[in-house]
Amino acid sequence: MPRKVLFIMCDQLRFDYLGCSGHPSIRTPNIDALAARGVRFDRTYVQSPICGPSRMSFYTGRYVRSHGSLWNEHPLRVGEMTLGDHLRPLGVRTVLCGKTHMTADAEGMARLGIDASTGIGALVAECGFEVWDRNDGVVPDGAKKQPSHYNKHLSALGYDGPNPWHQWANSGRGNDGEILSGWLLKHASEPAAVAEEDSESPYTTTRAIEFMETARDENWCLHLSFIKPHWPYIVPPPYHDMYGPDDILPVNRSQAERIDPHPLLAGYFNHRYSHAFSRDDVRETVIPAYMGLITQIDDQIGRLVDYLEKSGQAKETLIVFTSDHGDYLGDHWLGEKELFHDASSRIPMIVVDPSPEADTTRGQVNTGLIEAIDLAPTFVEFFGGQVPDHVLEGRSLLPALHGKSVPERTFVVSEYDYSARPHLRHLSPDTKNCNLTMIFDGRWKFIWVEGHRPMLYDLLSDPKELTDIGASEAHADEIERLKELMFAWARRQHNRVAISDEEIDTVLCRDDADFGVYLGFWSEEDLQAWQSRKDRKD
Amino acid sequence: MPRKVLFIMCDQLRFDYLGCSGHPSIRTPNIDALAARGVRFDRTYVQSPICGPSRMSFYTGRYVRSHGSLWNEHPLRVGEMTLGDHLRPLGVRTVLCGKTHMTADAEGMARLGIDASTGIGALVAECGFEVWDRNDGVVPDGAKKQPSHYNKHLSALGYDGPNPWHQWANSGRGNDGEILSGWLLKHASEPAAVAEEDSESPYTTTRAIEFMETARDENWCLHLSFIKPHWPYIVPPPYHDMYGPDDILPVNRSQAERIDPHPLLAGYFNHRYSHAFSRDDVRETVIPAYMGLITQIDDQIGRLVDYLEKSGQAKETLIVFTSDHGDYLGDHWLGEKELFHDASSRIPMIVVDPSPEADTTRGQVNTGLIEAIDLAPTFVEFFGGQVPDHVLEGRSLLPALHGKSVPERTFVVSEYDYSARPHLRHLSPDTKNCNLTMIFDGRWKFIWVEGHRPMLYDLLSDPKELTDIGASEAHADEIERLKELMFAWARRQHNRVAISDEEIDTVLCRDDADFGVYLGFWSEEDLQAWQSRKDRKD
Repeated sequence: MPRKVLFIMCDQLRFDYLGCSGHPSIRTPNIDALAARGVRFDRTYVQSPICGPSRMSFYTGRYVRSHGSLWNEHPLRVGEMTLGDHLRPLGVRTVLCGKTHMTADAEGMARLGIDASTGIGALVAECGFEVWDRNDGVVPDGAKKQPSHYNKHLSALGYDGPNPWHQWANSGRGNDGEILSGWLLKHASEPAAVAEEDSESPYTTTRAIEFMETARDENWCLHLSFIKPHWPYIVPPPYHDMYGPDDILPVNRSQAERIDPHPLLAGYFNHRYSHAFSRDDVRETVIPAYMGLITQIDDQIGRLVDYLEKSGQAKETLIVFTSDHGDYLGDHWLGEKELFHDASSRIPMIVVDPSPEADTTRGQVNTGLIEAIDLAPTFVEFFGGQVPDHVLEGRSLLPALHGKSVPERTFVVSEYDYSARPHLRHLSPDTKNCNLTMIFDGRWKFIWVEGHRPMLYDLLSDPKELTDIGASEAHADEIERLKELMFAWARRQHNRVAISDEEIDTVLCRDDADFGVYLGFWSEEDLQAWQSRKDRKD
Repeated sequence: MPRKVLFIMCDQLRFDYLGCSGHPSIRTPNIDALAARGVRFDRTYVQSPICGPSRMSFYTGRYVRSHGSLWNEHPLRVGEMTLGDHLRPLGVRTVLCGKTHMTADAEGMARLGIDASTGIGALVAECGFEVWDRNDGVVPDGAKKQPSHYNKHLSALGYDGPNPWHQWANSGRGNDGEILSGWLLKHASEPAAVAEEDSESPYTTTRAIEFMETARDENWCLHLSFIKPHWPYIVPPPYHDMYGPDDILPVNRSQAERIDPHPLLAGYFNHRYSHAFSRDDVRETVIPAYMGLITQIDDQIGRLVDYLEKSGQAKETLIVFTSDHGDYLGDHWLGEKELFHDASSRIPMIVVDPSPEADTTRGQVNTGLIEAIDLAPTFVEFFGGQVPDHVLEGRSLLPALHGKSVPERTFVVSEYDYSARPHLRHLSPDTKNCNLTMIFDGRWKFIWVEGHRPMLYDLLSDPKELTDIGASEAHADEIERLKELMFAWARRQHNRVAISDEEIDTVLCRDDADFGVYLGFWSEEDLQAWQSRKDRKD
């Protein structure tokens, strides 16, 4: 029986906009059913609260500072191992359908003479995936992005104009047929002009099912990567008016947050999208569309599960449902993501393992601290491989899925680099000095801001993260302790990727003389004495 | 006029076994002449006190934790940029003659489809160098090392036996013609059985001159890399009896060092080569040979300088004379290297810049803190390139060579990993946890030992580094300060190698809306207002 992983990722889906994570009004019955059949890891954090770096961590199984792609459009250095590099040797096709937000290291490839049009080069250029259908989703008018397969598909169906992604899939229509651009938040409540089955989530699902249908007898890991509910926030009927202002979660913010805020927070407060999402009319217009997009995805999950069951693949397929980061949606007076409040850095993570060993944990909610980088070793282990833990920095979730007790992770790490953010560069004119690092130990969320005081939240006394106590003298000891944790993390070696622990221990770790390198012997007699001792031992 | 760099490296040459660095009896007139014509950087530290990692730092311009080759025989990960990658685009041939101690990342190359027998692949497999003559020197009998060109050369000259490197170049002969192996320290005073001109240092020099002769009209960086005065300690006449016990530096050690030593030091004390070099007869036999090997190299430096002058290349050639680490030679009751006392981690560094801009500094002794990784940016700058400081972590020495005042480096870093050392693994059974990190700020030498207390030396009150005060309560504040330095260093990003600061600042660091990604606009009016403001600015 082949083994398969269906690795589903949403983009910008918060942890708390699912029925199974407690949202009172959103309808996500299919995702909730996954949670009932698997384990929902309730405290999962991304390694960076923004698309590109977060995804590079998912795909490499490594922290952001390890893979080095610190922001969107930072190329992933050539040679950095990805899921495909780990799974292909196990006989697993590793396939992309949807978004990766990966930028290839064209310079590095040229330096190494790797041609992106050939077999290995094509994999290197696409983050190690065999591309079934890459669709990075956001296609601004006139941008020099790679051609979107989805756009071509829409054109072929007769959706006219130079950019049907924008004009049809992500815009509404006015009374006189004019385009109501989905970029503008006031249009979020409009029905998108595309037919529902031609919109992005169903398209991506259809393409994924096409792949699975062609590969029924093979081992594969299919990365089905939805661009939604990421902006532009607009959705076709019937989802566009499925939810209203009464359905959205109450905004999580306080006036006190705006009083003498940390300069980093102040920088974000001043951004256009934070201004926008601090308005109630924006939230009440946009969030219902966001919810519609989620329920639309939920229906696609239903299609997928149905397909796997009917085609007899359900019993051989591990299913993951997750997201690359959250969305502030006005919480903390912020829009978008990029900082470390739960709204931004915490994600849904549901894993359904079909193995009988997982029967005892079905329906469990696991409250351990989980990182996005845990998936890569989980997949390696699921496919029967040895986890190369000199490369992969996460920890397999299989023991938890199989009900085994393992030492809990004591903290999670998430990173962000604001060097590409003009509204924040006054905090550090030095491009190399724009790093933020979050350490969260389950209670204390500590944010290291290079060149500024740290931020700190106590989620026990302040679960909504409304009070930054990073300047509090009373918490100096706590801050010192968290700094020590961060120091320990920062010291870890993460670039010794070309030789394994096992090879060091079994091949290198010997007396030099075992290799014929006779150091420290004065005379033949000394050498012979050593040889005799060695012979007796061997 | 072409520009050239003659990058000369010795192996295991201490900083203080040269006339110009104050040795009272060693004869190194040619090296001293280089110092008189250039600048001697008196406080230069290697990034790791052992061959492989130290050299990988020289060649990549990056700290050990950045290039990830933590110990000898750790492959240098494919794609890690080397001198050749930086210099070739500037039109500079980057050529190896001698030792590199580099292990290619064969697995990584196979993964990327890079064939070591082809053009780019051959460079990748040889640390980015065009190989003129690679000779890693140490050729144990029967070892599966790459074939030594030098051995073939000796065989061709009629030196018989399966391993003439050992039997002739690194052994003496007894009264009955029997081989007196240079591996055995008691044979260090024997004359090596090879003719002087066929021994390793002259051979390597001859080969280097052959290269230079073929490339007189080209830009090049020639890495002339002597294996000596590295063990086996044996040298042909007239060098074998040029020095005697009275010529060696007094041993630098105290009985107090052996009382309750740090467990790391205790581990090293117990090793065979430390036992050997703690014996006076060993020191008095070996060090004169070590000195002979140095004077032999000095004579070869004379040949090189003479060649450059006579061939008219001296005025276009920057000359570097340095070493990959030192040699304890019994100091601190230790043999070999691997720890961070000056005997091991401090190296000679002489740079002769032929440019008229350097005329004001000729003969200077620079006492700034210098790292081995400073050479790579020095070379890039010498050849007119822009230093890619998102990749190279050192600082060009050209400003100092040109008499410009630059902010001094506040500390140097050196690292070591003992995971391949069986006699130390009781300190950490965890292969990932065997790191040592030295921070030296010009006065305080602080050594972080994972899982153990740090070590500390105050070189102001204790210039001979005889008293480890790492357990001293009285120095707790100093230790805390040094820990902060190390924390700051450990936090630095070093893997963002695929995008430059400049590209981030000029291409990425813009408002999303500049890219057509219209975030945070409620209405057409908002967007138009933004557009008008932008138009006015542009």
